[in-house]
Amino acid sequence: MIVPVPDVKGREKILEVHGQKKALAEDVKWEVIARGTPGFSGADLENMVNEAALLAARGDAEKITMIHMEQAKDKVMMGAERRSMIITEKEKEITAYHEAGHALVAMLLPGTDPIHKVTIIPRGRALGLTQQLPVDEKHTYASSFLKNNLCILLSGRVAEELIFGEITTGSGNDIERCTQLARKMVCEWGMSEEMGPLSYGKKEEQIFLGREIAQHRDYSESTAVKIDDEVKRIVLKANEKVHQLLSENSAVLRSIAQALLERETLGLDDIKAIIGHDGKTASPAEIQAQA
Amino acid sequence: MIVPVPDVKGREKILEVHGQKKALAEDVKWEVIARGTPGFSGADLENMVNEAALLAARGDAEKITMIHMEQAKDKVMMGAERRSMIITEKEKEITAYHEAGHALVAMLLPGTDPIHKVTIIPRGRALGLTQQLPVDEKHTYASSFLKNNLCILLSGRVAEELIFGEITTGSGNDIERCTQLARKMVCEWGMSEEMGPLSYGKKEEQIFLGREIAQHRDYSESTAVKIDDEVKRIVLKANEKVHQLLSENSAVLRSIAQALLERETLGLDDIKAIIGHDGKTASPAEIQAQA
Amino acid sequence: MIVPVPDVKGREKILEVHGQKKALAEDVKWEVIARGTPGFSGADLENMVNEAALLAARGDAEKITMIHMEQAKDKVMMGAERRSMIITEKEKEITAYHEAGHALVAMLLPGTDPIHKVTIIPRGRALGLTQQLPVDEKHTYASSFLKNNLCILLSGRVAEELIFGEITTGSGNDIERCTQLARKMVCEWGMSEEMGPLSYGKKEEQIFLGREIAQHRDYSESTAVKIDDEVKRIVLKANEKVHQLLSENSAVLRSIAQALLERETLGLDDIKAIIGHDGKTASPAEIQAQA
Amino acid sequence: MIVPVPDVKGREKILEVHGQKKALAEDVKWEVIARGTPGFSGADLENMVNEAALLAARGDAEKITMIHMEQAKDKVMMGAERRSMIITEKEKEITAYHEAGHALVAMLLPGTDPIHKVTIIPRGRALGLTQQLPVDEKHTYASSFLKNNLCILLSGRVAEELIFGEITTGSGNDIERCTQLARKMVCEWGMSEEMGPLSYGKKEEQIFLGREIAQHRDYSESTAVKIDDEVKRIVLKANEKVHQLLSENSAVLRSIAQALLERETLGLDDIKAIIGHDGKTASPAEIQAQA
Amino acid sequence: MIVPVPDVKGREKILEVHGQKKALAEDVKWEVIARGTPGFSGADLENMVNEAALLAARGDAEKITMIHMEQAKDKVMMGAERRSMIITEKEKEITAYHEAGHALVAMLLPGTDPIHKVTIIPRGRALGLTQQLPVDEKHTYASSFLKNNLCILLSGRVAEELIFGEITTGSGNDIERCTQLARKMVCEWGMSEEMGPLSYGKKEEQIFLGREIAQHRDYSESTAVKIDDEVKRIVLKANEKVHQLLSENSAVLRSIAQALLERETLGLDDIKAIIGHDGKTASPAEIQAQA
Amino acid sequence: MIVPVPDVKGREKILEVHGQKKALAEDVKWEVIARGTPGFSGADLENMVNEAALLAARGDAEKITMIHMEQAKDKVMMGAERRSMIITEKEKEITAYHEAGHALVAMLLPGTDPIHKVTIIPRGRALGLTQQLPVDEKHTYASSFLKNNLCILLSGRVAEELIFGEITTGSGNDIERCTQLARKMVCEWGMSEEMGPLSYGKKEEQIFLGREIAQHRDYSESTAVKIDDEVKRIVLKANEKVHQLLSENSAVLRSIAQALLERETLGLDDIKAIIGHDGKTASPAEIQAQA
Repeated sequence: MIVPVPDVKGREKILEVHGQKKALAEDVKWEVIARGTPGFSGADLENMVNEAALLAARGDAEKITMIHMEQAKDKVMMGAERRSMIITEKEKEITAYHEAGHALVAMLLPGTDPIHKVTIIPRGRALGLTQQLPVDEKHTYASSFLKNNLCILLSGRVAEELIFGEITTGSGNDIERCTQLARKMVCEWGMSEEMGPLSYGKKEEQIFLGREIAQHRDYSESTAVKIDDEVKRIVLKANEKVHQLLSENSAVLRSIAQALLERETLGLDDIKAIIGHDGKTASPAEIQAQA
Repeated sequence: MIVPVPDVKGREKILEVHGQKKALAEDVKWEVIARGTPGFSGADLENMVNEAALLAARGDAEKITMIHMEQAKDKVMMGAERRSMIITEKEKEITAYHEAGHALVAMLLPGTDPIHKVTIIPRGRALGLTQQLPVDEKHTYASSFLKNNLCILLSGRVAEELIFGEITTGSGNDIERCTQLARKMVCEWGMSEEMGPLSYGKKEEQIFLGREIAQHRDYSESTAVKIDDEVKRIVLKANEKVHQLLSENSAVLRSIAQALLERETLGLDDIKAIIGHDGKTASPAEIQAQA
Repeated sequence: MIVPVPDVKGREKILEVHGQKKALAEDVKWEVIARGTPGFSGADLENMVNEAALLAARGDAEKITMIHMEQAKDKVMMGAERRSMIITEKEKEITAYHEAGHALVAMLLPGTDPIHKVTIIPRGRALGLTQQLPVDEKHTYASSFLKNNLCILLSGRVAEELIFGEITTGSGNDIERCTQLARKMVCEWGMSEEMGPLSYGKKEEQIFLGREIAQHRDYSESTAVKIDDEVKRIVLKANEKVHQLLSENSAVLRSIAQALLERETLGLDDIKAIIGHDGKTASPAEIQAQA
Repeated sequence: MIVPVPDVKGREKILEVHGQKKALAEDVKWEVIARGTPGFSGADLENMVNEAALLAARGDAEKITMIHMEQAKDKVMMGAERRSMIITEKEKEITAYHEAGHALVAMLLPGTDPIHKVTIIPRGRALGLTQQLPVDEKHTYASSFLKNNLCILLSGRVAEELIFGEITTGSGNDIERCTQLARKMVCEWGMSEEMGPLSYGKKEEQIFLGREIAQHRDYSESTAVKIDDEVKRIVLKANEKVHQLLSENSAVLRSIAQALLERETLGLDDIKAIIGHDGKTASPAEIQAQA
Repeated sequence: MIVPVPDVKGREKILEVHGQKKALAEDVKWEVIARGTPGFSGADLENMVNEAALLAARGDAEKITMIHMEQAKDKVMMGAERRSMIITEKEKEITAYHEAGHALVAMLLPGTDPIHKVTIIPRGRALGLTQQLPVDEKHTYASSFLKNNLCILLSGRVAEELIFGEITTGSGNDIERCTQLARKMVCEWGMSEEMGPLSYGKKEEQIFLGREIAQHRDYSESTAVKIDDEVKRIVLKANEKVHQLLSENSAVLRSIAQALLERETLGLDDIKAIIGHDGKTASPAEIQAQA
Repeated sequence: MIVPVPDVKGREKILEVHGQKKALAEDVKWEVIARGTPGFSGADLENMVNEAALLAARGDAEKITMIHMEQAKDKVMMGAERRSMIITEKEKEITAYHEAGHALVAMLLPGTDPIHKVTIIPRGRALGLTQQLPVDEKHTYASSFLKNNLCILLSGRVAEELIFGEITTGSGNDIERCTQLARKMVCEWGMSEEMGPLSYGKKEEQIFLGREIAQHRDYSESTAVKIDDEVKRIVLKANEKVHQLLSENSAVLRSIAQALLERETLGLDDIKAIIGHDGKTASPAEIQAQA
């Protein structure tokens, strides 16, 4: 399957087009930016260039610099900052541990996309955000990669539970995406040994009633029970793995959360400095064994 | 998740705009009012200012005072008073105990939002009302907070049962909201250990057939049975808790109800005076143990 | 819940408005009529006044009298009389016992609304009618009141069965309303201990496909089975109660039916005279015990 | 429930209106015809008068006589004769026994409507027809009457089976109507002791998708199973009864069928002559016992 | 039930009308053709006459002869020949055995309609065709006749299996029609003793969503299981019968297939000559015993 | 069933029409091309001729040659090449083994269509492609042929698993098509002995809501369970067969994959050269035994 977004060469060309009549500082290199924006659509890139121009104008800068570009990229990827939003100390603390959980698990699991930024400054509709950025563009995803993604999605919620002893409504979106991903592994990609190399359900995207009116169910209730069991089994296994990882690394978890409460935003190097190594310490074999 | 209503600073600005051409008494301070109206939308605030102006005009007051503002706020929060409505003594008594139940449980449970007013003057479509007002704005809700809300919703019905030995149709809306909240805890926020950190059902909000045509069910009948069991278990546990709280405090319950029958409306201080302390006496540990 | 019909004061004002340009006899007192028409909507009241004017005109009366008003009220409440309709002696007899059943049970059960009239003159789409008129307006209904209503609805059918040994299609509407009421007690008002203080199903009233396309079912098949069992249990208990009441009072039942066959229409005082007391003889305790 | 067709007085008036400008023989008495056309709508009566005028005109009669009226009535009740239709001897024989079965069972069961005519001349869309005509208009139906109707509907099929050892597609409509009637007895009229005095399903007649899109099912699968069992039990009991009646009276059955093959159409008197008595010999007690 | 097509007299008149202005050879007798075209609609007959005129014109014949009529009739009944279609030897062989199976079973079973033609020249959308022509028009069908039809529908598939050891997608339409017929026997015509004289499901033909949106299911899942079992039992019994018939007559089956491969089209007399007798050798008793 | 595409003669004529005004080299023979394009629709052929003209124009060739035709045919069959797409070495390697799996299984299984080309150059929406080209046009398909197709569809996924120990999302489309084919074998073509010669479900293609809104389910849940079991059994049997074939021939699998990584595209002769024989070595008997 090919994702309908431009590849690195395509991005470079798109950036050149949108940057043509802009005043650019010498440090702006389209090739470099193109490499750092995998997954961006043409519209995302145009947005980013315009946003950078705006930032430069606001700052009375004569030319758009690489720093403007970086800020613009963050806005496109993660939504606008909402610094004015009033958040209680308690919620800020919960958010810090939630994001620290995402970040730490993403760091520890091998084969995951590197972290771009972690922040507890509200952005768009979120109180906090952990952003990953793939090194290269993928067209297909291995089941091990997807299982790691399940772990990352669950890690915010597990961190809350470990530290505060209870969870909040804030993880609703995480577990929704996690459940959907696990369901696709079972029903579309044949990644459950129990269910075998079959697809379950029929996508109904073109119907006039709207978008995908939900997978059309073309199987028996008995099969539905087995699918539910498999989806739950896969999510619970990931959840257990996350519990173990965060329990064993709770000191680091606390350090990241404290750093977030102090500095609000952390980059990949900040996190590496806190945990004291480059991450990916959970050995692949160990992960495999759990699959 | 961010609720799309203005925060305290936003509210202050909105109030300033709508109050610009109004004749205001010196005691009217936008900042104070803004702090006392969390959860109000821009339209609510505009409504409130206009309503206050109307009340001032009706009373032939030259300027809008803080008292007009307070009355206007109550109308926006709780609907217009319907004093002309004829209600039998029996129904008035049932309503008093129903609202007294809500108020007492909200007072006793720790971590709940403080009570603003309790009344048995019919307002809007209700025979009585217990209104809470949060101290600060929440963007997420902890499971313990939600469990307390279940208790508050059930407490009117339990009070009726304790005092009169039977229930009325008047709690229909309470148990509907209580059931929906418990279902969301199980299906959207992963707050049932039995069901695990998964989401159940798919929201279908955008379909042209209307608003959320009900959660689309994407799970098996067997899972549906487990969800029903969990929702019922959570509601019954809250109901049991309320039974215990009101039974142990039935003397206070009667005092509040009597006060309501005499004075019709009670504020937070009135209730504190009746129960003899500041509330929140049910220890968190005790609540936790029941979770 | 507030029923959107005017209360006694509202009715008096509405009557005054519609009566303004009518020639009224001196005995017509709006206040008295207002007190005798609880549950009437504004349109009902207008209808009644116009109908009374028509009756006066037909009778070549110069002014509308209280008698015209009474007849008009009956027409609005129970539909137009259809005296021309040809009904066999057998059907007339069955109807008399059916209505006598309704009337007697309404008389015997405590807390029910008083009877206004019982008739076997066909009115509207019905072969006979038993009309109750509440003493005061209710905004909520206690479960004991609703259980009595179930009994009244079932009593026509039970009377037929007791007297003729078989039932007819004539009770179809009664058992439909009885079933719907019992279902609401279980699913909307939490009046089944088995099902607990939860609501079952989601009302879908606003959908463009028409009015309430039936409660949307948001529960499992297993829960559906329990709901069915509870609804049936509640109806059967009421049915048993009615059997007992009518069996124990079969002589009175026969007397009322005979009176109906002779006089066609009976008022509350007629029925009291037949049964020899004011009714409500089934003690509340006895009823309660069955709940 | 009142059927929206005119009663005997109404029919007489309607006939007078439509007969006003027609040339009528002296033997035509509207009152007599009105009595002989229960269940006819206003349109049916108009049809009949016009049809009689047409028949008179075709026969070059100067005036419409009672005989024209009779023929016109048959056409309106049973559809136009289709004498030209070619039917094999075998099919004619099967039809004769099928209709003889209907007629004989209708004769033997007490309380059924009297037979008007039996014919094996194809009419409308049917190869043969047995027409009953009620003595007086019913507004409600007793369960015993409905059970007899089930028997009459099944008797054509049973006759075929008894005589020819197998059945044909010709009884498809009979068993469809029989099943629907039995289902209504169980689900709408509370005539199954097992299911009790409750209604099952919700009629959805006004929905824009067409007429009654089928009863909306508002009960559990478990209740559906019980309904199916009851419907089947009721139909099978009727079927058994018919088997017994026709087996015990097979000689008469053959005589009626032979008479039909010879004379094509039989009236009530012809059938009485064949069976040697006035029918209704199956004692009510016997029928009751089976209920 | 009456099929809405003209009978033999009707056909003769329709043929006369459409033949009025055509140049006809003396051998063309409408009466004869009318007798040979049962089941033809008015449109079919008009088609046939026009087609014959076209054939005569193409062949430069001055008048339409009986031979043109015969060819035109075949085209209307079976679709246009598609001689140009390229078919592999293997497919031609499979088709020959498939059609031979249909033909042989139709010959051997008593009471079936006589064969008109068997062909392996592709016609319309089919690779081959076996056409039967009823001797007289039926308005109803006996269950034994329908059971034989099930056998004929299955016989192509069974022949393939017997000769080649496996089946092809080519019988998809046969088994679809066979299943539908068996389902109607069970659900509409009461021909399953197990299911009794009841109809199952409700035809929804007039709904605007299209034609019969499928039988509306008005029964329980438990009944659905029994229906499925009966439908399968009936089809499997027919299949077994066909297996036995074709196994016992495999030499004749091969002879018919060989004749088809050589001559492409066979008439009734050709087949009689091959099997050495007039067919219908499976005694009715034998068939009955299987019912 | 006839596929609505032109046969070889039809294709030749269509090619002549579209080639009429094109400048053609002498080596272009419509007859040859027609033989090499089974399954092409008229639109495909027109596309191909135009594409060839374009290629010739781009290459500044005066006339369209057979080489242009070949390239155009590949583009129409397999989509446009997307050489610019950036794919990681890892994904390229996985794709090579995936396609090698498809190719090898198609080579080894007897009776399958010959391979036209195998490529790991991205085309259209695919990272790689294995294209088969039938020797002659089929109108029906034997169950053995379909079972082989199931094997070919599963072989890419099995190759990934054997070589890399895990699977990717890249086989999602393969298993969807495989499941649909197996389901049709069971439900439409009667190819499961367990389910017998019956069709299950009703195609609803003409409904205005769109194309085939999914097979309408006209069977019980119990039958649905059996269908699911059969579909799974058939797919798992094919999967097992593929596992065996690829395990036994893993050296050849690796050779083909290596050749693909080096040469990117292989033709039938290239693959024959690699595996050292003409393929189809899995004996039919062996395959049969597994059916």
